[in-house]
Amino acid sequence: MKNVYQEALELHKNNKGKIKIEPISPLRNKHDLSLVYTPGVAEISRQIVKNKKYSYDLTWRGKTIAIISDGSAVLGLGNIGPEAALPVMEGKALILKQFTGINGIPIVIATQEPSKIIQFIENIAPSFAGINLEDIAAPACFQIEEELQNIGIPVFHDDQHGTAIVVAAALKNAAKVVGKPYSLLKVVVLGAGAAGLATTKMLLGLNCSADTCDIIPGHSRVKDVIVVDKNGALYSGREHQNIYKQAVAGISNIQNIQGTLADVIKGADAIIGVSGPNLITKDMIRSMSKDAIVFAMANPVPEILPKDAQEAGAKIVASGRSDFLNQINNALVFPGVFLAVTKGILTTITQGMKDAASNTLADLIKNPTTNNIIPDIFFPGLAEKISDAILKVK
Amino acid sequence: MKNVYQEALELHKNNKGKIKIEPISPLRNKHDLSLVYTPGVAEISRQIVKNKKYSYDLTWRGKTIAIISDGSAVLGLGNIGPEAALPVMEGKALILKQFTGINGIPIVIATQEPSKIIQFIENIAPSFAGINLEDIAAPACFQIEEELQNIGIPVFHDDQHGTAIVVAAALKNAAKVVGKPYSLLKVVVLGAGAAGLATTKMLLGLNCSADTCDIIPGHSRVKDVIVVDKNGALYSGREHQNIYKQAVAGISNIQNIQGTLADVIKGADAIIGVSGPNLITKDMIRSMSKDAIVFAMANPVPEILPKDAQEAGAKIVASGRSDFLNQINNALVFPGVFLAVTKGILTTITQGMKDAASNTLADLIKNPTTNNIIPDIFFPGLAEKISDAILKVK
Repeated sequence: MKNVYQEALELHKNNKGKIKIEPISPLRNKHDLSLVYTPGVAEISRQIVKNKKYSYDLTWRGKTIAIISDGSAVLGLGNIGPEAALPVMEGKALILKQFTGINGIPIVIATQEPSKIIQFIENIAPSFAGINLEDIAAPACFQIEEELQNIGIPVFHDDQHGTAIVVAAALKNAAKVVGKPYSLLKVVVLGAGAAGLATTKMLLGLNCSADTCDIIPGHSRVKDVIVVDKNGALYSGREHQNIYKQAVAGISNIQNIQGTLADVIKGADAIIGVSGPNLITKDMIRSMSKDAIVFAMANPVPEILPKDAQEAGAKIVASGRSDFLNQINNALVFPGVFLAVTKGILTTITQGMKDAASNTLADLIKNPTTNNIIPDIFFPGLAEKISDAILKVK
Repeated sequence: MKNVYQEALELHKNNKGKIKIEPISPLRNKHDLSLVYTPGVAEISRQIVKNKKYSYDLTWRGKTIAIISDGSAVLGLGNIGPEAALPVMEGKALILKQFTGINGIPIVIATQEPSKIIQFIENIAPSFAGINLEDIAAPACFQIEEELQNIGIPVFHDDQHGTAIVVAAALKNAAKVVGKPYSLLKVVVLGAGAAGLATTKMLLGLNCSADTCDIIPGHSRVKDVIVVDKNGALYSGREHQNIYKQAVAGISNIQNIQGTLADVIKGADAIIGVSGPNLITKDMIRSMSKDAIVFAMANPVPEILPKDAQEAGAKIVASGRSDFLNQINNALVFPGVFLAVTKGILTTITQGMKDAASNTLADLIKNPTTNNIIPDIFFPGLAEKISDAILKVK
């Protein structure tokens, strides 16, 4: 029997890509040509000269976003470069089209310098209604997103916020299943990259700007989160900690505990893996508190296989993969976000919008169970529901 | 009755754009998702890590090009900016798709600085099989194209070479119709921008690099060409003449004639307008030699309307518009060029390839007549024939 990798390779070889351009306007004869091209198209240009916003309605711009990556942090494969990132971006474009009708254009770029990426996106912005940043490594991703937001470009770094939104939703429902209050969960986040730090900020209810974070008043939040990277737990004043990790360390890990993953996972209610393959052992799971929640989301190879986590006593297991149950994947969120961006011509996606998206996602599961803490991507009307929730906040 | 501009505006308002993304691979269930997205897509990334060239076959890259403009010289409308250029780029994408099956992605950018445009295109290059430059003003376009070619990025500035290729083909056939030898035509080119200078180089058979030009030995060429810009005829040593105009002035206008358009058009066999609206008068046409050839290609409003040129005695008239006869438009050429680029994974488009494209285009009209000097865009197999001719030179 073919495995999923062989089958995927065959499909990609046969189809030579997963998406294509199709005409909307007919082009059958010279009269058609005179409307879509010169001279008729000149009138469309003249209209847009009067008001640039007309470009959203008179071209495909209003229904089209860019999916941009520098290939520096692709899935769990690491810094594999722009060409190798392209099939992943194309997959995102396919998902976006399928679930929203929005056109996503995969753009992979040959620079990994934050200032050059910012300039690139500033320059490309007039072509699109919004920008989905994908698979850009931390800490560059934080600077890039913040500066673009400040310029007023509608940008959403999927690996950060998509992941954070879905994890928070799944964790809320998982807490219900194991009968523990969400706010009192003891959570360990493994991985302090884009997804790890953004998830931690979301769980702790932080409003962060560059290298400082404040707790958002009244935000539903988990209070006890420890973030672990390859040097162990983040804590205030630790060495080998960039400014973004330092800012989060100042508010997470309130007891300033030092130690390895094996040390800090002891007694934890939930472990959230957004790191790399096979980093969590069965012994670690065994050392967690009763009814442990294990989200092992590294792709394609998770931190621990769901069945191993279950064997070691985990009550709830989830991964990022499409072929395991409880798929916690940002693909659940970004289509709805960009549906809102295009419908509302949004110039920014606020924390309130992200919270609304997360709460909506959680509430779609009326009675969460061990094997059903989060809707899957085929949940009817998922993108519309997320989009509606976001536009209500607007 | 609605005019073409009203009808075009209505069409664009109703359709909100002329192209869209469509899925190729199915996405019906979790199994499909596991092939096009994680985990399956990881295998495609791993393959491309082994060899970047696999990205042409395993993603849509091999069938996809970017159509890039900075909006600095859009049709005859001038520097109208990126947003207003977008509908024109989208029209090009529609034409490309219709006649070749190739995906063209309209990209309009928010900078008009040559060095920044070059950097932008270097950065976006891994996403595409080739780059079609559109509606970028001279002299920036010359520097941009040359530097990108030197880097090895397959780039084609349509306004230069597309126009030059089609004009040379049309002029060869027009010469046959009026019974004058092509090489002995006395030609005036009105406009010294991208199209004007490139056309002049093509007619004179020049091989140019930055600011120097040499005659290509053995190249079929017109010997007597005078280029006119808003300051009159280009001639060696003239003031207000950039380095690119200076280089062409050194080889065109062999008698170093000075004067206005009205002066130099007297006795000319052909006038080629690639400038702006209404710059050629009936009196000027009357002053040309017998059986005058008038290509008035400014868009959407030509230098002189075909019927006015005919009334003033022109034997052959052509324009750039889809709604007049003898449409001389680069849309005849760029689809075939990019069909060749994608089929052959070309990294450069040589002068020999451009000559082959032009000759092929001319030869498609077996018996040219006054009203039929050039195939129209609906000529069966046009793009394939141009592509085949280019790939033969490869």
